[in-house]
Amino acid sequence: MKQRTIQLLEKIRTTAPLIHNITNYVVMNSSANILLALGASPVMAHCEAEVEEMTAMAGALVLNIGTLQQDWVASMITAAKTANVRGIPVILDPVGAGATTLRTEAVKKIMGAAAVTVLRGNASEVLSLGSSEATTKGVDASVGVTDAVVRAAGQIAGEMGCIVAISGEQDCITDGDRVFRVSNGHPLMTRVTGIGCGLSAVTGAFCAVAAGERLEATAAAFGFYGLCGDLAVQVSELPGSFATSFVDCLYSTGAKEIDALLNIS
Amino acid sequence: MKQRTIQLLEKIRTTAPLIHNITNYVVMNSSANILLALGASPVMAHCEAEVEEMTAMAGALVLNIGTLQQDWVASMITAAKTANVRGIPVILDPVGAGATTLRTEAVKKIMGAAAVTVLRGNASEVLSLGSSEATTKGVDASVGVTDAVVRAAGQIAGEMGCIVAISGEQDCITDGDRVFRVSNGHPLMTRVTGIGCGLSAVTGAFCAVAAGERLEATAAAFGFYGLCGDLAVQVSELPGSFATSFVDCLYSTGAKEIDALLNIS
Amino acid sequence: MKQRTIQLLEKIRTTAPLIHNITNYVVMNSSANILLALGASPVMAHCEAEVEEMTAMAGALVLNIGTLQQDWVASMITAAKTANVRGIPVILDPVGAGATTLRTEAVKKIMGAAAVTVLRGNASEVLSLGSSEATTKGVDASVGVTDAVVRAAGQIAGEMGCIVAISGEQDCITDGDRVFRVSNGHPLMTRVTGIGCGLSAVTGAFCAVAAGERLEATAAAFGFYGLCGDLAVQVSELPGSFATSFVDCLYSTGAKEIDALLNIS
Repeated sequence: MKQRTIQLLEKIRTTAPLIHNITNYVVMNSSANILLALGASPVMAHCEAEVEEMTAMAGALVLNIGTLQQDWVASMITAAKTANVRGIPVILDPVGAGATTLRTEAVKKIMGAAAVTVLRGNASEVLSLGSSEATTKGVDASVGVTDAVVRAAGQIAGEMGCIVAISGEQDCITDGDRVFRVSNGHPLMTRVTGIGCGLSAVTGAFCAVAAGERLEATAAAFGFYGLCGDLAVQVSELPGSFATSFVDCLYSTGAKEIDALLNIS
Repeated sequence: MKQRTIQLLEKIRTTAPLIHNITNYVVMNSSANILLALGASPVMAHCEAEVEEMTAMAGALVLNIGTLQQDWVASMITAAKTANVRGIPVILDPVGAGATTLRTEAVKKIMGAAAVTVLRGNASEVLSLGSSEATTKGVDASVGVTDAVVRAAGQIAGEMGCIVAISGEQDCITDGDRVFRVSNGHPLMTRVTGIGCGLSAVTGAFCAVAAGERLEATAAAFGFYGLCGDLAVQVSELPGSFATSFVDCLYSTGAKEIDALLNIS
Repeated sequence: MKQRTIQLLEKIRTTAPLIHNITNYVVMNSSANILLALGASPVMAHCEAEVEEMTAMAGALVLNIGTLQQDWVASMITAAKTANVRGIPVILDPVGAGATTLRTEAVKKIMGAAAVTVLRGNASEVLSLGSSEATTKGVDASVGVTDAVVRAAGQIAGEMGCIVAISGEQDCITDGDRVFRVSNGHPLMTRVTGIGCGLSAVTGAFCAVAAGERLEATAAAFGFYGLCGDLAVQVSELPGSFATSFVDCLYSTGAKEIDALLNIS
């Protein structure tokens, strides 16, 4: 995966794929800066009157249901359908699914109306979307990505026909068949808002340049992103400075660091 | 107050109370980062369909009328009523009250429909909400927290049945009976957007862990917050770097600094 | 232009003009911080019920159509009309014009309903608004501000009766009659979101204190802003740290640096 990650990163930096984000107010600025530092071209646009045109120009579509309003769901579905027709990957970040009915229902509505390529969230969000009791049985989502979580993730991937990518102390990326585990990343990443949402955007950028190999691209995105966290914490262990350094690392990290430190199995 | 501030801070850091914010677009990201650095768990959610569920899970509710839209007022009232029923403290930041009719009326509507625990703003905002001429007579709000402002704040606290907390060169926190004055803080804090709104969020976090003693908790929040400003300006006197350092200080400041430098009387 | 830029900057710092922004969600925070660092007083307000009152208090009005919703256009027009009646300069940033029908039509609607003082964007956005084929003929907007772009800008300025200010490797500011070219600025400025939108806000601040000389004020804003980019990149060549340093430079840059490095012809 090291060589593949280096190649995908290089392709993002040379082609600057347009990533269309319909995301929450909290992270619009940070997601744009994360994508720019990575080398991609972000655009944020949520008005239903323009999402079709915008998605059609994009290399990936990133949907995120934080700070959700009901009228945004229609825009997300219109954009996702446009992406589906054109073979553009769709990343869905189910922020807060399981916490309120509005959020859980919104995810189900979007996934019922259009195909999602990658569902990326933390364990509690993703597992709240499983249909059967088996999914959540024995799973304490708050503890992170345990073996039980990996099994449940695989089951949801199968049910929903998409890649499931769960962030935690160790990340788990699966299509229900194969599983990648990513051990890069640092707990300080959870003390800066928008770092998780930014990973969904970065996953979009990696998928945009990956042609068909989206499972590998998602794992590469997770590994590279966690590695940037590992490197940023070496600059500062305080969250304000860490956040600045993390963006710096997204811009400066390359083949050398990936080759030495990427930890995907 | 030093010992109490240390205890409340410790309790925030060990219990990570959920703080539900219905706040303005400008500061959603900075308020979230400020709460995360402090040790609390922020959530931003404004859709009327979910605020009841969200507030019910929270340790405090923070309402802020910057970048107001009329339909957000209904969500704020629904959330505040939920908080009232459950004994969850409600912080209201009347951004721009007195400047436009929309803002002034929104505050009156919210405070007419639900009980607010702490009204936090600068002098001109808070004093614009007083009902009688006596409130504003002889008060030049732009000059900060003078004796006249303290008297007016006490009067408003009495009229409205809430804690009034006014930020200025010296801060004033009163329930109409007792008064705390906080001398921590630095003028550079006014040159970074969202620092004032962030204090409302932090006040929510301190109140969330304070059980009944909300006047003391509010004073502790103001003192700790101003102290972090005092410490951050020692790292940088330029607003961009200061803002980063301020978030770092919210994370790193503890008993030692509070014991040496907290200035509440 | 050096002496004039120093004078305008000094006037912003001593009078702190209120700049009313109706801008996109991505940059609300960064635009506010950029204006505060500069020495101006930002306010963000978009609700149609209050924009008239807010604009009436302001020294300049800044409109920006990123993350546009259709109902915001009415607020922008109401605010712009208020500004027109009172002689308050109006800056319009046509983010994404030419990319979607919604954006292009919104600009035309605003400019059809009210007078705009300065139209500020990149070449592709601005040139998409030209009415004749001649405007775009032979112009490859993506390459920056070439002679052909300058000619087209002058033509649009004449057609629309406003100052046209185009950002690029070299900036071009023209009223169709005179042309200023600004050679300050650094490519890293394009790798931080909101830097372009921030320039529109800063142009508002310079125009707010310039009385009638708005062409010179716009050129001064561009020169000063680019100079801050030049200085910030000396502190860091990585986008996260650069963004922080850029805000620092807006606060600390003065007569000495302007005199030595401003490059307007």
